[in-house]
Amino acid sequence: MSKLEATIASIGPLDRSAMERAQARQDRLTKPRGSLGRLEAISVQVAGITGREQPQIREKAVIIMAGDHGVVAEGVSAYPSAVTPQMVLNFLRGGAAINVLARHVGARVVVVDMGVAADLEAQPGLVVRKVAPGTGNIRLGPAMTRAQAIQALEAGIGVLEDELARGLDIVATGDMGIGNTTPSAAIAAAVTGLQVAQVTGRGTGIDDRGLARKVAVIEDVLRCNRPDPHDGLDVLSKVGGFEIGGIAGVILGAAAHRVPVVVDGFVSTAGAVIAGLLAPQAKAYMISGHKSVEIGHQAMLSFLGLVPLVDLDLRLGEGTGAVLGISLIEAACKILCEMATFDSAGVSDRPV
Amino acid sequence: MSKLEATIASIGPLDRSAMERAQARQDRLTKPRGSLGRLEAISVQVAGITGREQPQIREKAVIIMAGDHGVVAEGVSAYPSAVTPQMVLNFLRGGAAINVLARHVGARVVVVDMGVAADLEAQPGLVVRKVAPGTGNIRLGPAMTRAQAIQALEAGIGVLEDELARGLDIVATGDMGIGNTTPSAAIAAAVTGLQVAQVTGRGTGIDDRGLARKVAVIEDVLRCNRPDPHDGLDVLSKVGGFEIGGIAGVILGAAAHRVPVVVDGFVSTAGAVIAGLLAPQAKAYMISGHKSVEIGHQAMLSFLGLVPLVDLDLRLGEGTGAVLGISLIEAACKILCEMATFDSAGVSDRPV
Repeated sequence: MSKLEATIASIGPLDRSAMERAQARQDRLTKPRGSLGRLEAISVQVAGITGREQPQIREKAVIIMAGDHGVVAEGVSAYPSAVTPQMVLNFLRGGAAINVLARHVGARVVVVDMGVAADLEAQPGLVVRKVAPGTGNIRLGPAMTRAQAIQALEAGIGVLEDELARGLDIVATGDMGIGNTTPSAAIAAAVTGLQVAQVTGRGTGIDDRGLARKVAVIEDVLRCNRPDPHDGLDVLSKVGGFEIGGIAGVILGAAAHRVPVVVDGFVSTAGAVIAGLLAPQAKAYMISGHKSVEIGHQAMLSFLGLVPLVDLDLRLGEGTGAVLGISLIEAACKILCEMATFDSAGVSDRPV
Repeated sequence: MSKLEATIASIGPLDRSAMERAQARQDRLTKPRGSLGRLEAISVQVAGITGREQPQIREKAVIIMAGDHGVVAEGVSAYPSAVTPQMVLNFLRGGAAINVLARHVGARVVVVDMGVAADLEAQPGLVVRKVAPGTGNIRLGPAMTRAQAIQALEAGIGVLEDELARGLDIVATGDMGIGNTTPSAAIAAAVTGLQVAQVTGRGTGIDDRGLARKVAVIEDVLRCNRPDPHDGLDVLSKVGGFEIGGIAGVILGAAAHRVPVVVDGFVSTAGAVIAGLLAPQAKAYMISGHKSVEIGHQAMLSFLGLVPLVDLDLRLGEGTGAVLGISLIEAACKILCEMATFDSAGVSDRPV
């Protein structure tokens, strides 16, 4: 059995007993039952994921998967591919938005070259798992071979396991890759059956003409590749990206090792869709960090049955929305672990 | 000039120059312009509030105003008034939800007895500003005299100023008071002109019959008291509460001293409505922390022109949603202060 198959096979259901105990504890805390809404539900989900009635969130990481895209040659992005390695260096130096937000929530930043189309010097903090220097132009053919898709997924699983060895109570996904909203929209259209125009947005900021071109390109992409919407490997290899495969691998690895995984916006959710196709039972381990401005995001969230924690009009990627989610999930778990009960606090629990 | 009048008179407009400089800085940071959505907008608002291009959020507090309500005699709440002092003690011992969440975001908790209907022993951490032991039953007459309304407002201003002397970069409002969604709904109906049934919810958790009774009571309250919707002092004194006046005072004090103030859910927003009636220019200093489950909350948010930061189905009060907002606002300010610029990071800012 391959590493990918073994990982998928080891993803079990949530721990119902831990969830029941967590819910019973929530109901004894000094507040009206249910009055903390989603914070209560999230704490119970994390109990089910981890198998602990009182889960602790201490070790946190955001894993940023970086890769380039041959389809950028079709004029689908406002920025050139050269920005991908420039931003990777920015991550390593701590100057990007994700660095600031990860510091704010106490998460370490892991930067992975999954397929950047530039030779990045080996340097502290950079994890190199490069499958190839950028995908093929998906307007003309597949993004990658099926073997490369498996390689990307297993690289993601491996990165997750390396972080687990360092200590990991929660993980957030992030992405960097100029052009990667194009394969993400192709994935969204392929699996939801929606029209391309219904799931294609402006990415880093193309104008109306650029958006029309992007929609036409993605229509060509789907016509040329005809991905099978029920086969995650087929979708990933034909219209995906190396960083998208890496994200899907991180999610599968997290589910297999019972670590809650916070999914960032549009591109990360495309990775989550691949993970969900490969292992439907992995969806229970996912928490959506935020709702993206990208119009196709909601369709993928609905496909996965996820409801995002916040909606702050973000459209940056990198894991920025997911790490904000980490802080809320940590807060939810602290509520469960640290609040007084009616008994211990001497507060009346009986309605009049 | 009274303290209240002087405070209102000293609330000026936001600092447009600081806002322009903050926006210009946002546009030089290594991300597509506008891609951090509301985080960018919030950072610019805080720049305007504080007059600083790069505002720092270090000293944080949540001020919980506690008070009781004579209208509880009408059977409008699922819990008895005795729970108010019990929860005040829970706050002081650190066991309530607000304690957990305030620790999570690094905010100190300030507990103020504005009008609890019990003798609370003097003890460390309890600020006593009791106007009276509970309001009058507003089904039968006014909640308080106009002099008491002014006293409550000035107490709130004084508490804010005491915290300012300890160091305060941001403040959140919180409330505790069994029965206080009843005066809050009365305020919402009075100022928005909506039907009582459109702004009245289940509070701590009354059933359908209790809700019908609560609506009928609030209709009586408005018929009996006829508050003038353009006169904040009239609304507060006739159908308000001591803690609601205290919250309004905190908000006025924060605006006067150019401190961003995060407004919690339904009851705190009722306080914000009173503050907004007394000083419309104070609205620019308010940030709504979260959207409450209480159905009347949105109407008051619209009245104030506020859009909440998160919507997590909370209905607890205490400031719980507001302190979650503090963390997001702090994150927004860190983005503005700590991110690299395109120049400093060597990242291309030119679209292709």
